[in-house]
Amino acid sequence: MPKRVAVVGVGCTKMGEHWDKSLKDLSTEAGALALADAGIDGKDIQALFIGNMSAGRFIGQEHLGAMAADQAGLTPIPATRCEAACASGALAFRKAVNAIKAGEYDIVVAAGAEKMTDIKGAGAIAALMGAGDQEWDGSIGLTFAGLYALMARAYMEKHGLTREELAEIPVKNHKHGLNNPYAQFNFEVKKEDVINASKIADPLTLLDCSPITDGAAAVILVSEEYAKRFKNPIWVLGSGQASDTLALQNRKSLTEISSTEFAAKKAYEEAGIKPENVDVAEVHDCFSIAEVMAYEGLGFCEKGKAKDLIKSKDTYIDGKMPVNPDGGLKMGHPVGATGVKQIVEIVKQLRGTAVNQVKDARIGLTHNIGGSGATAIVHIFGKE
Amino acid sequence: MPKRVAVVGVGCTKMGEHWDKSLKDLSTEAGALALADAGIDGKDIQALFIGNMSAGRFIGQEHLGAMAADQAGLTPIPATRCEAACASGALAFRKAVNAIKAGEYDIVVAAGAEKMTDIKGAGAIAALMGAGDQEWDGSIGLTFAGLYALMARAYMEKHGLTREELAEIPVKNHKHGLNNPYAQFNFEVKKEDVINASKIADPLTLLDCSPITDGAAAVILVSEEYAKRFKNPIWVLGSGQASDTLALQNRKSLTEISSTEFAAKKAYEEAGIKPENVDVAEVHDCFSIAEVMAYEGLGFCEKGKAKDLIKSKDTYIDGKMPVNPDGGLKMGHPVGATGVKQIVEIVKQLRGTAVNQVKDARIGLTHNIGGSGATAIVHIFGKE
Repeated sequence: MPKRVAVVGVGCTKMGEHWDKSLKDLSTEAGALALADAGIDGKDIQALFIGNMSAGRFIGQEHLGAMAADQAGLTPIPATRCEAACASGALAFRKAVNAIKAGEYDIVVAAGAEKMTDIKGAGAIAALMGAGDQEWDGSIGLTFAGLYALMARAYMEKHGLTREELAEIPVKNHKHGLNNPYAQFNFEVKKEDVINASKIADPLTLLDCSPITDGAAAVILVSEEYAKRFKNPIWVLGSGQASDTLALQNRKSLTEISSTEFAAKKAYEEAGIKPENVDVAEVHDCFSIAEVMAYEGLGFCEKGKAKDLIKSKDTYIDGKMPVNPDGGLKMGHPVGATGVKQIVEIVKQLRGTAVNQVKDARIGLTHNIGGSGATAIVHIFGKE
Repeated sequence: MPKRVAVVGVGCTKMGEHWDKSLKDLSTEAGALALADAGIDGKDIQALFIGNMSAGRFIGQEHLGAMAADQAGLTPIPATRCEAACASGALAFRKAVNAIKAGEYDIVVAAGAEKMTDIKGAGAIAALMGAGDQEWDGSIGLTFAGLYALMARAYMEKHGLTREELAEIPVKNHKHGLNNPYAQFNFEVKKEDVINASKIADPLTLLDCSPITDGAAAVILVSEEYAKRFKNPIWVLGSGQASDTLALQNRKSLTEISSTEFAAKKAYEEAGIKPENVDVAEVHDCFSIAEVMAYEGLGFCEKGKAKDLIKSKDTYIDGKMPVNPDGGLKMGHPVGATGVKQIVEIVKQLRGTAVNQVKDARIGLTHNIGGSGATAIVHIFGKE
């Protein structure tokens, strides 16, 4: 009988340009918030896991596990950094779950942190391409917006998605983020604003893209035995992770992300649920088209039918399948932190304390993607 | 009752300057050798773990898990990159052990790979400082040789270790590496050669330092149930990991690495053995002084008594406590691969097939350090 794992504390910094805070500051702030939320002390923590994509390039710092443990005063506990590009946060969380299931610890912290705005000029864009294939994607001058633009063009052509329909994704997410106190932006956009914004990589405009963000998030995980000591534990019902080719050109299809499908299948099976049982989801909308493909990969609609789901407005918080109730990555995407930030939101949703609370949410899902889909990690959470 | 995990296949590339091989090539070569050694196919592998310190800075590539899985044709299996500076390899191995103990997989590959020679000029030295504290160690111009030189000076002063005695470490390791087909160097050095070599950071000379290396190593791990299918499985008896302050200046002592002591204590307890039960060890001799401190941290001698152990020549392969029978890091230190390369050697020793075979070796230990000691990971292995 596998052990069960619960989340009992969550914390998150504001997403944005933190000129006055270092990566150390941000990770410690998120961790302290999570500890306070759980009502425990740092000395209770037995191990630390941190997701970070590219601090080596952003700020010249590797060895992020020890950095975070040191700054938080948690040494000599084991401290592990996990990396899978923009899926680093969910990866760190997954390894934390594993460590508890292996019987090694009863109470650990899983965090994600990224400081992206210290690097000059196009440096952040170049660093982000480390998530793709340097030999095949990077060497021909592709940026990440370029990679997703290629997918957007192929998807629009194949499934008849219009530019207007695609623009509905950022419109929804900006609306959801309007009252999110952690969001990098708090303004609404209209469909025309999205379509007429500066072109980044045709057909994607500035408003189709998630921003460059500094931020961190942390959660406290405990074993089933320890969970009894906490009020309102939120259980990890399922976890799935999958890989795909690093280079976009080697994919079998440009209009679907197969790693999402593999990871979701595993997570749904482990949780013993189906897509229609999910009450609320945080999906990886690094670009508007990514959310469209996530709807299909996660089974929220059939292949090619995302446009109908968009039209129905069922992915708004009061719809049948609310997606990104906090505004998603569009409201801040500190790459290595994003996967944990998504979990923070879903835990709040299942506790019933989210800012944009989805009514009667009992089962929540997080979906975190690395690069153009070479990694996908899906987690499913539930309340008692 | 915790599950047991065994190593059933090992592989390692030659250590050196591989101008004709990429990081993809090296990791795949090591993985293929490990699969062949285990007598299995890639399709049998359920998950991949890879240790890498700084490919983002060395070659502009992050997302190493997906990269390695893709190149080896293993997609869509879950692929995880772990990083703890020069302890990344042992960290990846430890997470692989955990994943099997958690009941998630029965057969996985754990690898380590680093391509360090593609970066120009002092770039590698700068990238390596990402293992230290950028704010405190890096900003004042310290290099890694500088950090270990500070520790060497403090140790020599406190415990009366002479320059001549310190030089015996590289002398031994070069002698051990002489017939190692994977070694970056195959030549002996005399004590005078070490002392009179170019000064890198006083008192350390060029011959006290491990080299800049391209290389990769991989091992196949299986659950207890699967181990029955393989001849001569080597068991993971114990595993320990600990952290310490990232910046050297914040340590309680410069003459001991406390993370080694915490990690070793945990590993010994889990294995149910004492230091004197270890028949052969691979320790982290990134600099000669590091091996000296490892003797004490691992309990091979009392604090301050390493000079007696050096004088006794008991750390030679025919001594009472053979250390680094393949020449250690001195024969090549591809930072993220080193921790796995150490495991490859210890598995061979316990199988009785090592080039410099330690007679009747039944229990082996690996000791992998990140940075100046902010991470330490110790594993203990045994045969049936």
